[in-house]
Amino acid sequence: MIKILVDAMGGDNAPQATVAGAVLASRQDKELYIILTGRKDAVQAELDKHKYDKSRFEIVDCPDVIDMNDVPTEAVKKKGSSLIQGFWLLKKQDDINALVTAGSTGAMIAGGQLILGRIRGVKRPALCAAIPNSRGGVTLLNDCGANAECKIEMLCQFAILASAYAKAGFNIQNPKVGLLNNGAEEHKGDPLRQQTYQCLNKLNGINFAGNAEGRDIMLGDFDVVVADGFSGNVALKSMEGCGKLILGVMKKEFSSSLSSKIGYLFMRKAIKRMRGQLDFDKVGGALLLGLKKPVIKSHGSSKPETIANSIKNAATVHRNALIPAIEQLLEGSGLDQLSEIINVGE
Amino acid sequence: MIKILVDAMGGDNAPQATVAGAVLASRQDKELYIILTGRKDAVQAELDKHKYDKSRFEIVDCPDVIDMNDVPTEAVKKKGSSLIQGFWLLKKQDDINALVTAGSTGAMIAGGQLILGRIRGVKRPALCAAIPNSRGGVTLLNDCGANAECKIEMLCQFAILASAYAKAGFNIQNPKVGLLNNGAEEHKGDPLRQQTYQCLNKLNGINFAGNAEGRDIMLGDFDVVVADGFSGNVALKSMEGCGKLILGVMKKEFSSSLSSKIGYLFMRKAIKRMRGQLDFDKVGGALLLGLKKPVIKSHGSSKPETIANSIKNAATVHRNALIPAIEQLLEGSGLDQLSEIINVGE
Repeated sequence: MIKILVDAMGGDNAPQATVAGAVLASRQDKELYIILTGRKDAVQAELDKHKYDKSRFEIVDCPDVIDMNDVPTEAVKKKGSSLIQGFWLLKKQDDINALVTAGSTGAMIAGGQLILGRIRGVKRPALCAAIPNSRGGVTLLNDCGANAECKIEMLCQFAILASAYAKAGFNIQNPKVGLLNNGAEEHKGDPLRQQTYQCLNKLNGINFAGNAEGRDIMLGDFDVVVADGFSGNVALKSMEGCGKLILGVMKKEFSSSLSSKIGYLFMRKAIKRMRGQLDFDKVGGALLLGLKKPVIKSHGSSKPETIANSIKNAATVHRNALIPAIEQLLEGSGLDQLSEIINVGE
Repeated sequence: MIKILVDAMGGDNAPQATVAGAVLASRQDKELYIILTGRKDAVQAELDKHKYDKSRFEIVDCPDVIDMNDVPTEAVKKKGSSLIQGFWLLKKQDDINALVTAGSTGAMIAGGQLILGRIRGVKRPALCAAIPNSRGGVTLLNDCGANAECKIEMLCQFAILASAYAKAGFNIQNPKVGLLNNGAEEHKGDPLRQQTYQCLNKLNGINFAGNAEGRDIMLGDFDVVVADGFSGNVALKSMEGCGKLILGVMKKEFSSSLSSKIGYLFMRKAIKRMRGQLDFDKVGGALLLGLKKPVIKSHGSSKPETIANSIKNAATVHRNALIPAIEQLLEGSGLDQLSEIINVGE
């Protein structure tokens, strides 16, 4: 049995979408046991709208909700909130395996660090998004927003964390790692990038393949792209914006004339397949890597399918032993022996 | 008469595309006088393929060509090359108004700074790209690659430079300026962003509207988005990659079945309009802002139409007196009185 906590009150469409998503996931995977944190009455009312296996669901009553305007460090103190209560349960109960939330990213990162805690040796947790790529798979972008300022050692650890995730989450053997930079050549970028390049080149167990440009996230042959949380966030949101603009223009143009509308009827299936391939949410959320258990951030506007995908993702990385894999990769990486480069750079 | 220098040997398709583009531009704008720099025989041979107005064309023979592998500071010394010779002519001859190249970006930036020179008071030139947005217009992203490391004063100047360009190049009155950041709220980002936010807020003559996220470049209502050259470059290339991926998937899907192919026939016009709206090259190149005369970088893979658009863009900003507008905006900005914020931050 895999026990997964779902923050039932997190996200724009909670608790409807979160509960519906949890029920959906439980139907797809009979090993799942779901613990919903939230206002008991509201959550139960949503559950009652569905046919669900009562022996695999549990509600933990949490009267509080974290507001998107709460400062993360204050939010962490709201022990009665669905998210923070979830983190305490995750920390204290060994048999709970993972947490999924569509709530505040800041509160999640703070709760993850301050309550659940980091894997031994990890400097900072990083938010890792799975982005659809031209090969029909995904490219992991790590960090995409947890750490605006980064140091060499952090970027190297991001490479290790995401490499383990690529294997445990997507069955990618020997994942190719790129360093997000403003050009492909070795000397490119600021001193942080130049020194991180040297360090990544020397790490054991990491298949470092050089610098990645922004376009390589979706078009290149990297499985992992390492970034500081600032430029990673800019990249992620720039791609999302571009995707939305194109799909919006497409929608407008495809209904702009009778001829287009007729054409659309013939192309419906192709357009649906296309949207499927380009769906940023298909993987289900960004994984906050580096914590003692898997914690997944689902999009704030998550629909039931998105939540279900996030739960599925959590179950997959637990099954494939992501956390022990990270510990092992970290220990064998030799990162601690690279202090010469790291200390000069910092 | 507007005299524009065109680096006939720059870019993947030179000199065919550059010469054809110059001829195209000269037909669209009868005021243009084009000076082509490059290997005389090769350039003349290309010119002879077209019907062109001999009284408005001139070739300056340049035996050398800058290789894309040349280090910029070395490339600048190649005085006999089409690009560097162009910069010397631009500097020495008052009646030459602008330069267009599809060659090496690094060599262009080096040549611009070391040969042509900056406008008085400008710390560093910045590369400003015009990106198609959801309003059917463009958002100017400045800097998108000239300066990997930036300081507060530079970012503030980038806002001033691009605001002047928005008016002179695109007739946008009172352009809305955003600061590229990892969130919309005022406190977001690293210290550089936080302090630049305060500075931009106090600048005269700049319509600063707060932080812009990556998605706001294409979807938001900003006319100018200010970025350091590292994250600006990441954003630009991430959007390009996303656009290319979607158009690629679309192409594949639209020919995937008989039904799709029939649909495509009905939608041809809509798809063409769509591609037109999303064309990153329609504006014609990125402007290297902050130099004494307009210098435009056209895409390395520029076709004749792209080169013609870049030449047209150069003519437009010259006609609308971009350089004096920058000088005026810079002088009236009060940036030099913000040394308190700037010195604390740097």
